[in-house]
Amino acid sequence: METKKLLMIPGPTPVSRSIQDQMGRETVAFSDANFVNDFNYCLKELKKIVKSDGEIFVISGSGTLAMEMSLANVLRKGDNLLIISHGYFGDRFVDIAKNKGINVDVLSSEWGKTVPIDLIRETLKKKPYRAITVTHVDTSTGVKADIKSIGDMLKEFPEIIYIVDGVCATAGEEEYMDDMNIHILFTASQKAFGVAPGLLILWANEKALRARESIGTIGEYFVDFNNWLPIMHEPSKYFATPSVNLIWALKESIRLINEEGIENRFKRHELFARAYQKALEELGFRILAEEGYRANTLSNVLYPEGVEDELFRTSLATEGVQVAAGLGTFKGKMFRIGHMGNIDKHDLISSIASIERTLYKFNIDKLSIGLNIIQRELVK
Amino acid sequence: METKKLLMIPGPTPVSRSIQDQMGRETVAFSDANFVNDFNYCLKELKKIVKSDGEIFVISGSGTLAMEMSLANVLRKGDNLLIISHGYFGDRFVDIAKNKGINVDVLSSEWGKTVPIDLIRETLKKKPYRAITVTHVDTSTGVKADIKSIGDMLKEFPEIIYIVDGVCATAGEEEYMDDMNIHILFTASQKAFGVAPGLLILWANEKALRARESIGTIGEYFVDFNNWLPIMHEPSKYFATPSVNLIWALKESIRLINEEGIENRFKRHELFARAYQKALEELGFRILAEEGYRANTLSNVLYPEGVEDELFRTSLATEGVQVAAGLGTFKGKMFRIGHMGNIDKHDLISSIASIERTLYKFNIDKLSIGLNIIQRELVK
Amino acid sequence: METKKLLMIPGPTPVSRSIQDQMGRETVAFSDANFVNDFNYCLKELKKIVKSDGEIFVISGSGTLAMEMSLANVLRKGDNLLIISHGYFGDRFVDIAKNKGINVDVLSSEWGKTVPIDLIRETLKKKPYRAITVTHVDTSTGVKADIKSIGDMLKEFPEIIYIVDGVCATAGEEEYMDDMNIHILFTASQKAFGVAPGLLILWANEKALRARESIGTIGEYFVDFNNWLPIMHEPSKYFATPSVNLIWALKESIRLINEEGIENRFKRHELFARAYQKALEELGFRILAEEGYRANTLSNVLYPEGVEDELFRTSLATEGVQVAAGLGTFKGKMFRIGHMGNIDKHDLISSIASIERTLYKFNIDKLSIGLNIIQRELVK
Amino acid sequence: METKKLLMIPGPTPVSRSIQDQMGRETVAFSDANFVNDFNYCLKELKKIVKSDGEIFVISGSGTLAMEMSLANVLRKGDNLLIISHGYFGDRFVDIAKNKGINVDVLSSEWGKTVPIDLIRETLKKKPYRAITVTHVDTSTGVKADIKSIGDMLKEFPEIIYIVDGVCATAGEEEYMDDMNIHILFTASQKAFGVAPGLLILWANEKALRARESIGTIGEYFVDFNNWLPIMHEPSKYFATPSVNLIWALKESIRLINEEGIENRFKRHELFARAYQKALEELGFRILAEEGYRANTLSNVLYPEGVEDELFRTSLATEGVQVAAGLGTFKGKMFRIGHMGNIDKHDLISSIASIERTLYKFNIDKLSIGLNIIQRELVK
Repeated sequence: METKKLLMIPGPTPVSRSIQDQMGRETVAFSDANFVNDFNYCLKELKKIVKSDGEIFVISGSGTLAMEMSLANVLRKGDNLLIISHGYFGDRFVDIAKNKGINVDVLSSEWGKTVPIDLIRETLKKKPYRAITVTHVDTSTGVKADIKSIGDMLKEFPEIIYIVDGVCATAGEEEYMDDMNIHILFTASQKAFGVAPGLLILWANEKALRARESIGTIGEYFVDFNNWLPIMHEPSKYFATPSVNLIWALKESIRLINEEGIENRFKRHELFARAYQKALEELGFRILAEEGYRANTLSNVLYPEGVEDELFRTSLATEGVQVAAGLGTFKGKMFRIGHMGNIDKHDLISSIASIERTLYKFNIDKLSIGLNIIQRELVK
Repeated sequence: METKKLLMIPGPTPVSRSIQDQMGRETVAFSDANFVNDFNYCLKELKKIVKSDGEIFVISGSGTLAMEMSLANVLRKGDNLLIISHGYFGDRFVDIAKNKGINVDVLSSEWGKTVPIDLIRETLKKKPYRAITVTHVDTSTGVKADIKSIGDMLKEFPEIIYIVDGVCATAGEEEYMDDMNIHILFTASQKAFGVAPGLLILWANEKALRARESIGTIGEYFVDFNNWLPIMHEPSKYFATPSVNLIWALKESIRLINEEGIENRFKRHELFARAYQKALEELGFRILAEEGYRANTLSNVLYPEGVEDELFRTSLATEGVQVAAGLGTFKGKMFRIGHMGNIDKHDLISSIASIERTLYKFNIDKLSIGLNIIQRELVK
Repeated sequence: METKKLLMIPGPTPVSRSIQDQMGRETVAFSDANFVNDFNYCLKELKKIVKSDGEIFVISGSGTLAMEMSLANVLRKGDNLLIISHGYFGDRFVDIAKNKGINVDVLSSEWGKTVPIDLIRETLKKKPYRAITVTHVDTSTGVKADIKSIGDMLKEFPEIIYIVDGVCATAGEEEYMDDMNIHILFTASQKAFGVAPGLLILWANEKALRARESIGTIGEYFVDFNNWLPIMHEPSKYFATPSVNLIWALKESIRLINEEGIENRFKRHELFARAYQKALEELGFRILAEEGYRANTLSNVLYPEGVEDELFRTSLATEGVQVAAGLGTFKGKMFRIGHMGNIDKHDLISSIASIERTLYKFNIDKLSIGLNIIQRELVK
Repeated sequence: METKKLLMIPGPTPVSRSIQDQMGRETVAFSDANFVNDFNYCLKELKKIVKSDGEIFVISGSGTLAMEMSLANVLRKGDNLLIISHGYFGDRFVDIAKNKGINVDVLSSEWGKTVPIDLIRETLKKKPYRAITVTHVDTSTGVKADIKSIGDMLKEFPEIIYIVDGVCATAGEEEYMDDMNIHILFTASQKAFGVAPGLLILWANEKALRARESIGTIGEYFVDFNNWLPIMHEPSKYFATPSVNLIWALKESIRLINEEGIENRFKRHELFARAYQKALEELGFRILAEEGYRANTLSNVLYPEGVEDELFRTSLATEGVQVAAGLGTFKGKMFRIGHMGNIDKHDLISSIASIERTLYKFNIDKLSIGLNIIQRELVK
């Protein structure tokens, strides 16, 4: 019998059976009273999860569309935007913004490192920036930005809209909009929420809405806050047919989050991340992200000598774990393993065990060394 | 026991169990070899369904995003666009285009009627238009445009891009891109494909792609053809995570379409539409759309004297059929009933029977009169 | 598209989606605390449904095993048993009993008719009978026995155990153990409960249990009351592994019954039966069971001239309804249609409509005549 | 998030999702042509799995009913039966047989040990036995009988029917009817087949059928070979409604078995059993069954000093593994862990890891010691 292949990529993450069952239900009308209730529940609870009393948008689409939405609603052509990039998804903001004719400045770190806050502050002083984007966790590097400290620092710049890309973070890493002075936050369904891909979630607070007002008509129709606000206030209204089944799935995901407690969820992600990362290091791998800036949601893992990337990932899949390839210059030198969403101790244990057995095929006998780390972390 | 409520609105339409089951599967990586095959199958078969040898895009989103995509890739700010509007969704094109700074001219018919082709031709002669949009079936009116004749006429204007909104039509009404001289066609998953909402499908032929090339960089990032083309040519590549489960559902929908045969499917839609419309007229309702221009996918139905809209629709739901309310000036005077996608004789019979029983509550005894029509159409 | 084939045979009956979902759940241990609760719920509610304060048994098996169980626990070899037979399933009791060496007397009616109560009374006076069996509804004939009147009459014979076979009746026809003086009642999951086949349900009151005591050790081990009583009192105990998923399905079925109300359920069955039978007669068929003794759960329907059985049933299946063939001497002359369990108005309408369209293929044009009857019954 | 509770009891065993999906399908008629095909497929393939060219019976019920069936069809009241008992389920044969008035002799081993073949041979020589029963794997002890050697020895007694109880063995332990001279073999769906409980499977070869013939009418109606043979030869016929959904589930289970290959399946069970048992011993537990007679399908595991049974099993469940309690005199001293059916490396690893973490709560720090054994067995 083939070993079940665990979906340990940085999204989509494993979808729990109870969430799957919601996706497989008979579809109803978007105006169905029960569905409207379910949608409202999602909207209300999603605000609580990030401690926001602003607006929320749940829309068919992907994280990339959310990135575009975050820019399109607050920046005009010619506005200045500072992008903090810790990898591929930071850079993607550059593309999106440039295509829109926004003036872009980028502060990029070396992959694995972060941009120092002081440098951000200095840069912001040089020009009147309208907004800044920070990718909370960049999937390409596994680097986690210190969004709280950046938020604190940004209090010195009350004109600037602080946009946080939470795609690989929200519901797995601590993110509290008001506490952290974030004005726009967004994520996608298939990451730490553990739903299939197809939904974007975006929160915008009052300052962001005022920015939207100030820029007048925008060309981006589908992601225009103004088109969606009436619907998000009253989901029985129509703007575009919502993805009924994915919203049910999201509701079940939120129920699971509430059952666990968001704080407990963050702690679990932290515990699991530490266990994974310690175990992987003990097995001879190197974590790309520098210590202190490692994500709790995924790890980007550099191979030891003598381990060939593609062969490793294929063998690992046979042993029962699917991971993702490295991106950019790290393609071939690294794999990326997700450890976010609705995964449990079994998934953690099974994935490290599979990695050990795969290493063994490369004549690296570290059997049970990683598992020992994991077990000791789990019993702490 | 409550009577099962049939979802006879003009989308989402009833989702077959085998399609639901695909939505409820365990999600896999977008790069999973089997999924890539499934996605490729969809892309290949979708081109056959509309007889197109151009490009195809299957993207998370909704019909409205597809509308925006169709304009954003071929029109620049200041370009002239002629919009043929037979209702609410025709008018929506106006909003989208205007927000983008496109010069819009609109030919609107009275609701229920169509814009004469000659008038279109005359209008096109007045200015250099870059594109024209036609809503194949406008859900708000149930009017079907003669997209083939318009396509023929447009051969006189070889510079113009012909954009057809197939949201409420594709896979239910005859639509053949090449035969009908259509350059861009799009639809959404929750209509005649019978999948849950959350996907848009857009076809663009070579002429449309050349138009895209000619306009250079565009501000709309997520719907930019150029970002998606590499993915649609090779779905194992990444641009934005596809909605894995909805694509599986779409695949099953396509399998059902192929099993039936697209021509047979069109005939079934025609037969059912005729049966519905005749039966409804015999029951004392009036069909909004003028004869010769009635959609096969839905009917917009005006109440006889003495039937109060909201009460009627609520009673009808109790009898087991959910229909949609009228839009615009017809709100309160009309209901809209979908009859597209994967519905069968039982659904047809059950919905007319339910309507008869509901009328009876309004002291209109036409019991079995509509059913007689239906039965006679079905045995023809 | 093929028309969905409605499962209108006299069992299995259509299984509601919410019941199917229970069957498809991940199986747990029989001793799982939640499952034990669920099982207990079933046992408790099942007693209420038939107003019994005796014992209840829910066991993997079929109706035939329940028949055997009902005899094996109260009759010894050589005991006298009177069997009232209104068809095939009455006769099956004869086989079961004879194989066990029980002395069997049978009162059989002509198929379609019933055995008069006076004849039963006279017969019982002739010998000391230990038990009498009556098939509430015999699936082979659609005849419903007057189990209440028989129960009343049996008060004259306080020694006799009154065994009622409720396989094609329980939860669809009125059956109240205590009110009707019934001592053993049984049914199977796939009939009016609307669960997939695989479970038998048997109720035994105090008199039946005393009879069990009185006969000492019995050879039939699996159906021995004594082996199951401890389990039915405390389902966390082990005798044989229960069919976990089917018991969940049964629980959902009971929930649906309670939601409807058992009295309402009986009324629905009665209304539907009258509608079916009137409509079928109006279409030219004849109901086998004599008036006053027609089941509410199924109808056995004799063809009019010129309708060939197998061709009719095959055509009907194409039109979307599966019915069962006649049994015994009525094979080829009759079909059997179930109308019990979780069916609704749509199923009723659709099945008569399909029958009309099938008759039309036999050049019998009665289109909408049956539907008119149905509609008028439904609006009463 | 709670850790998923793995169902590691000796039945029901984990039901694979693809098997669950079959249980959750819409039920059809037993005479439905596709279902008849599916049933036939099961019957044909089940014969291949045990290399039998005799008869096969697949019936709603449980393993206990199969035990009764195996005796009822070949033994008359007063016949001599030798029962080889290695635990609780061996003893159950005694009860069943005695209730039927069969003369029973029992050879019982101490729990954990086996009855020597020579002793069996000597006993058989003393009386004319009609049959012998051997429990292949007794779930109460985890002892595996040497059914092949017993079968060889039985060639000296050509009159004796050799009945093997394969409930906890078939499809997990080597069992080939013809090669091993077995005349009746049976099992249940919820063990190594990995289907939910509710089906029994019984194979009977020609000698067993002749024995059935020789004893004439039997009192046990539901399990009478003669009633089922016509159905098993042609499943479109009716005797009792088959458990449609469980038979579909069984079909999927057989498909998985064939995909793996039955020999590979045996090897996997052997490898897993060795790994489990070595690891458990290394962790300080003792395996009840003596070496050389340990089942591959489950292990009965004696606690080390200081580990309290109920607390251990409850803690273990929290860590994500459900095991069963000890039976008989071993209640409180032992737990029973199943490792049969459709389990994979992840389940093995996860269950040992969970046991280690649970021991740790009892202040026994053997973290990763068991895992090391497992890993080394798995990479062999």
